[in-house]
Amino acid sequence: MNYRLIAFVFGELALIVGALMSVPLFMALGFHEDPAAISFAVTIAVCVALGLIGLALRPPKDKRDLRPSSGFAICGLFWILIAMIGALPFCISKAIPNYIDALFETVSGFTTTGASVIINVEDIPRSLLFWRALTQWIGGMGVLVFIIAILPRNDKMSTALAKAEIPGPQFGKLVSKLRFTSRILYAIYIVLTLMLVAILCICGMPVFDAFCHAFSTASTGGFSVVNGGIMAYNNIGIEVTITIFMLLFSVNFNLYYFIIIGHVLKALKSEELICMFLIYFGVVAAITVDLCASRTYANVGEALRYTAFDVASVMSTTGFGTGDFTTWPVLAQTLLLAVMCIGGCSGSTAGGLKVSRVLILSKSSVNSLRNTLSPRSVRALKLDGKPIDDATVSSVRHFLILYVFIMMISTILVSVGDAAGDSFNTNFSAVIACFNNIGPGIGVVGPYGNYAHFNLFAKLILSLDMLLGRLEILPILLIFSPKSWKKI
Amino acid sequence: MNYRLIAFVFGELALIVGALMSVPLFMALGFHEDPAAISFAVTIAVCVALGLIGLALRPPKDKRDLRPSSGFAICGLFWILIAMIGALPFCISKAIPNYIDALFETVSGFTTTGASVIINVEDIPRSLLFWRALTQWIGGMGVLVFIIAILPRNDKMSTALAKAEIPGPQFGKLVSKLRFTSRILYAIYIVLTLMLVAILCICGMPVFDAFCHAFSTASTGGFSVVNGGIMAYNNIGIEVTITIFMLLFSVNFNLYYFIIIGHVLKALKSEELICMFLIYFGVVAAITVDLCASRTYANVGEALRYTAFDVASVMSTTGFGTGDFTTWPVLAQTLLLAVMCIGGCSGSTAGGLKVSRVLILSKSSVNSLRNTLSPRSVRALKLDGKPIDDATVSSVRHFLILYVFIMMISTILVSVGDAAGDSFNTNFSAVIACFNNIGPGIGVVGPYGNYAHFNLFAKLILSLDMLLGRLEILPILLIFSPKSWKKI
Repeated sequence: MNYRLIAFVFGELALIVGALMSVPLFMALGFHEDPAAISFAVTIAVCVALGLIGLALRPPKDKRDLRPSSGFAICGLFWILIAMIGALPFCISKAIPNYIDALFETVSGFTTTGASVIINVEDIPRSLLFWRALTQWIGGMGVLVFIIAILPRNDKMSTALAKAEIPGPQFGKLVSKLRFTSRILYAIYIVLTLMLVAILCICGMPVFDAFCHAFSTASTGGFSVVNGGIMAYNNIGIEVTITIFMLLFSVNFNLYYFIIIGHVLKALKSEELICMFLIYFGVVAAITVDLCASRTYANVGEALRYTAFDVASVMSTTGFGTGDFTTWPVLAQTLLLAVMCIGGCSGSTAGGLKVSRVLILSKSSVNSLRNTLSPRSVRALKLDGKPIDDATVSSVRHFLILYVFIMMISTILVSVGDAAGDSFNTNFSAVIACFNNIGPGIGVVGPYGNYAHFNLFAKLILSLDMLLGRLEILPILLIFSPKSWKKI
Repeated sequence: MNYRLIAFVFGELALIVGALMSVPLFMALGFHEDPAAISFAVTIAVCVALGLIGLALRPPKDKRDLRPSSGFAICGLFWILIAMIGALPFCISKAIPNYIDALFETVSGFTTTGASVIINVEDIPRSLLFWRALTQWIGGMGVLVFIIAILPRNDKMSTALAKAEIPGPQFGKLVSKLRFTSRILYAIYIVLTLMLVAILCICGMPVFDAFCHAFSTASTGGFSVVNGGIMAYNNIGIEVTITIFMLLFSVNFNLYYFIIIGHVLKALKSEELICMFLIYFGVVAAITVDLCASRTYANVGEALRYTAFDVASVMSTTGFGTGDFTTWPVLAQTLLLAVMCIGGCSGSTAGGLKVSRVLILSKSSVNSLRNTLSPRSVRALKLDGKPIDDATVSSVRHFLILYVFIMMISTILVSVGDAAGDSFNTNFSAVIACFNNIGPGIGVVGPYGNYAHFNLFAKLILSLDMLLGRLEILPILLIFSPKSWKKI
């Protein structure tokens, strides 16, 4: 393992975080939020110090090789270190006095989960709320893809790091020209975010709120700056806009790239895209019928309004809540939990298992059943008309096994010490909500509930789940393997 | 598809069920339970009629070939048909007036689940209770292994049917001399059951109760003949005996065969066996500590007494309840749910995923992680020192995917129509309890709750889950495939 290289890259990363933190620092000075300003200044100083140490350790150009497997572990480690730095302003300013709580909040931000321990958001200084929203936006496209896009670097290493971070089962060809395409992806991300800010302002949202909510939507994070969430504006225009944008940000970004270069039909024919919208509209229809049958809302229109928003919110793993879905009938809640686990498309900012994985799993299961019936005629699995190789199917199945095991073990660990306090309901859905990077779950952690009452051990486990979910398990697991840290 | 062969075998099966039903018929006459006696007589008449039709359609000796895949579908179909016949006495005698309810109860018996819709068991005629207990005992070793053991038949067909019915991921070599070994397995089953009856009687249980509870224990079913369950006897001897026998019946029966032929060490070295007992004692220890920490029971001894019994009951998928575990802390409940899903050893009467599958899944996951780190050194997976081939690993992974999908879809379907009635908790644990053939779950379907309040659609879905769980998914799924029914 090339420790000098790690220290060097981490130093650069710290400098970037410090630079990004100057925005909320200036805000804090402008709003006269003194404790926040001091906390940002201190954290920036820490970042600069770490950056200088890193630059001092800069390895020579010919010693920048990295094994892909080490890339995974390093990537996982960086996310943890960045979250530890990002948590400092909350802790130093006493907005979130306990460091573990602050870490939970920051991990939740960087992983675009949106689970919160803050009970009264409106009490928190605005510069800190802005930083909280910004962490999501930074995390949305991946901290490391970000530095790859900006900094010139050896391509072998970039690929090793990027492989660990790009979500979804297949590492698309698009990424072969890594730096070029990641810049395009970033451009799409920024343009869509700014469009959203503009539309939200036109609909009547204050500019500060529009920026923060746009960051939350673009990253499918879900932090809000008002206690009532998007609901508080009681503005149908804002709700519809955010619904549409949540869905847009759950779409594989490669498809936007195809549209830009003129392959519109190819983009629209994507099986994953079609499947995602079929699931979305199917679940919205089923829940609306269920809500009408149980007379939860006054009329069909209102039921549809809440359902369309909440299903998009949950499926895109954003986690903005409008209606309090803990009062919904069980079928609706169960469908929401199912959609939470499925998540958005691969290559988007959304979390979850990813629609493409669910597609591959379903197809490979149907295929296996067929092969049981007629063992002599083996069929190839196809996605978007192209055959999927056995290695991909095997790795997706392996992923599901880890996914199930991690959910089971986490639910057990989160229950430790919570003697007779919470229900299985709450703990299980908290794990689902954190592991899939959604934020709010069912039960006590519902749309208006939050994670403040969990004990510190449970918060650490849930933080780990958020990281495992965001980095798709492997990078975090491989941190704990001694082999990742061996010399080449 | 050879329809005449199916009709013929089914006819024989109906005759066997009719013959077995004569025992409760004579009991009903002895106890002067007239409606029950009439209902048994009518059902036996139906069985005889079906048997005669079947015998009339007897195919010539050279036309008794069957494709293995058809064997699966036929096996699934037979279980459903047998349950439909077995439900008649409950319905005709008006003990369970609704036929769907009676079917649920009978499927629950034959699949050794032990989930009940009867609220007051002590109101039911004793001959019907005996029949209910007997269905479990018949189902415990598999109706079809049973007929293979008794009737002379073409070996190709026997293998096709047996493959579909013997639980666990690997179809052991033991089964190659199918008729011979299945007779030995039956002998072990009968001897162990009779030993249990004797010990229960010595401990002070009435003879009728001892027989019924021995049937429930041997099959890991879990039906009781008293409302309070095993708890009602308040007899520590009975509790300890049943705890030990529940564990004995969760052990792979092949190991008993090894012990009989003198390979005691080989049997005790079985990885699956060791793993099962490690999980059992680990979970018992964890729950006891949790119960003591939360002061649920007066002292450690009492906590241990309930825990040892309930964990054995749940892990063996028997589902006798002593303590009301819905009052236990969340950690204990979560551990119980986890153990429910794991279940007992393959080749036993227990349900669940099976310890060997969990072992293979864990080992293959660790292996895949290792291969990510050092792709050049591929290691072989081993169980009991022997390598596991890729096909087995792949089929176990495939099994888990189907397992997860079926649980998810069933939980959604069970919620349909239950507008705001039940909680996710109850529905999810009902599906876990039925699919893994346990019986009682957490929540409203806890140890003293039952399934009476579910709507008819949910009961049908849960019945299907019990069959899917008992037959390990494939036979039931393949019933619905047109290919299973094609001509050779």
